[in-house]
Amino acid sequence: MKVAFQGEPGAYSEQAIFERWQTPETLPCETFDAVFEAVASGQAQAGLIPIENSLAGSIHQNYDLLLRYQLPIAGEHFLRVRHCLIGLPGASKDQLRRVRSHPQALGQCAAYLRSLNVKTEPVYDTAGSVKLLQTENDPSVAAIASRRAANLYGMEILEEGIEDNPENYTRFLEIRLTPPDIVVEDAKTSIVFTLKNSPGALFKALSVFALRDIDLTKIESRPLAGKPWEYLFYVDFLGATQTESARRALSHLEESALLLRVLGCYPRARLP
Amino acid sequence: MKVAFQGEPGAYSEQAIFERWQTPETLPCETFDAVFEAVASGQAQAGLIPIENSLAGSIHQNYDLLLRYQLPIAGEHFLRVRHCLIGLPGASKDQLRRVRSHPQALGQCAAYLRSLNVKTEPVYDTAGSVKLLQTENDPSVAAIASRRAANLYGMEILEEGIEDNPENYTRFLEIRLTPPDIVVEDAKTSIVFTLKNSPGALFKALSVFALRDIDLTKIESRPLAGKPWEYLFYVDFLGATQTESARRALSHLEESALLLRVLGCYPRARLP
Repeated sequence: MKVAFQGEPGAYSEQAIFERWQTPETLPCETFDAVFEAVASGQAQAGLIPIENSLAGSIHQNYDLLLRYQLPIAGEHFLRVRHCLIGLPGASKDQLRRVRSHPQALGQCAAYLRSLNVKTEPVYDTAGSVKLLQTENDPSVAAIASRRAANLYGMEILEEGIEDNPENYTRFLEIRLTPPDIVVEDAKTSIVFTLKNSPGALFKALSVFALRDIDLTKIESRPLAGKPWEYLFYVDFLGATQTESARRALSHLEESALLLRVLGCYPRARLP
Repeated sequence: MKVAFQGEPGAYSEQAIFERWQTPETLPCETFDAVFEAVASGQAQAGLIPIENSLAGSIHQNYDLLLRYQLPIAGEHFLRVRHCLIGLPGASKDQLRRVRSHPQALGQCAAYLRSLNVKTEPVYDTAGSVKLLQTENDPSVAAIASRRAANLYGMEILEEGIEDNPENYTRFLEIRLTPPDIVVEDAKTSIVFTLKNSPGALFKALSVFALRDIDLTKIESRPLAGKPWEYLFYVDFLGATQTESARRALSHLEESALLLRVLGCYPRARLP
């Protein structure tokens, strides 16, 4: 099983792949576009892309790519982001003078790092900060990255779960060439639609779900630049597109939506 | 006027400050927390924080900080993100071999960079990539950053607006110690609320606005980790809290919301 992801070996996306599949082969890609390309061309059997993080928000760019490539969502995966303090084998926390990582990871561990009384140094990539440790061989320097990055580069985890806010998780979507098999009772459907911006337009659009007791698990509006009166909406709901109520809801929604696209219907995952 | 922002001198946040104020003094901060601290302590008179980007999405962390610090939103500002290709004074595009920037900026200019036929090198910060040019003095290397970064470090803009997708803008919020003066007819209000997750709960919540013809300009749900059946919602609507209809809508919403907080009522800005 070959799965494409964006980032360097040891990135959190790669860790998510290792949680999701037993013995995957991973394909690192430089950009999200390249992940979609790899799946579309058959170079990889699946791709795993982050779609939202509980602290950083949704990644609109990946919604754009889902619309552009029309590859169906085949599943979802929640990764609890647990940052690790990583040092040379045998290093101790007392010796540390400097800690390096991506600015976002440093920011998410700010209180912990203050308690260590170390200097922080931003680099562009969490996994890259671990690779640097290997080259430099200085026990007074540590990195912040995933457990997988520590293992990959033969470094030692000095402490795990050092993030200030434990409610830090990323939701990933699996993309494939073909839709997955689903159990209707445990399915989730993701759609995108646009509405003319008039007062109450969204309220009417949501009525198609409320009238049928369909439960929404996500809603997000996104203004369309250059089209100041149009909005794009992302909605996830519990249920499968082939049920009578979902079929009717979508056909009802089509009456008022300027554009309506089903991005996928896939087995639902639970928050960790 | 002293305004705090997150990032290095020359960051896009700093460029937004220079668009918004005539002769500001800027205060660079390492983290978003530090921006809120600077305003809360009176070290800066205002702070300017990014809240959403048209490609990258909302920055949930800054919503958390708005709730935690309870500093009112005093205004909004849209920055059109125009990436510049920046080189040494006198350098030409034909000589270029390598281009450095933050991975997100490199990704947003991927097609352009392919046409230049150069190697890309990720670094942690857009402005930092320009600072490096100054130190190295190598005309075959360029950086991607804001116009302001080029001016700040005395470098030359080889081309402006090199991003593949022109619909790239960031919405910033101004935070202050006290609420702003507003004109009721041209105000926007930002609120946060939580609902018990039951089918139709959001539909009922939105009815308080639809019934009063109040126009929503943003809605976003955010699942609360650790509370699998609770959601946080961000809503922006056109109008001022002191109007009769908004007052009634919010009091109506309070009946079903577990938490309801007004983050600010401020002069509305238009998409550029």
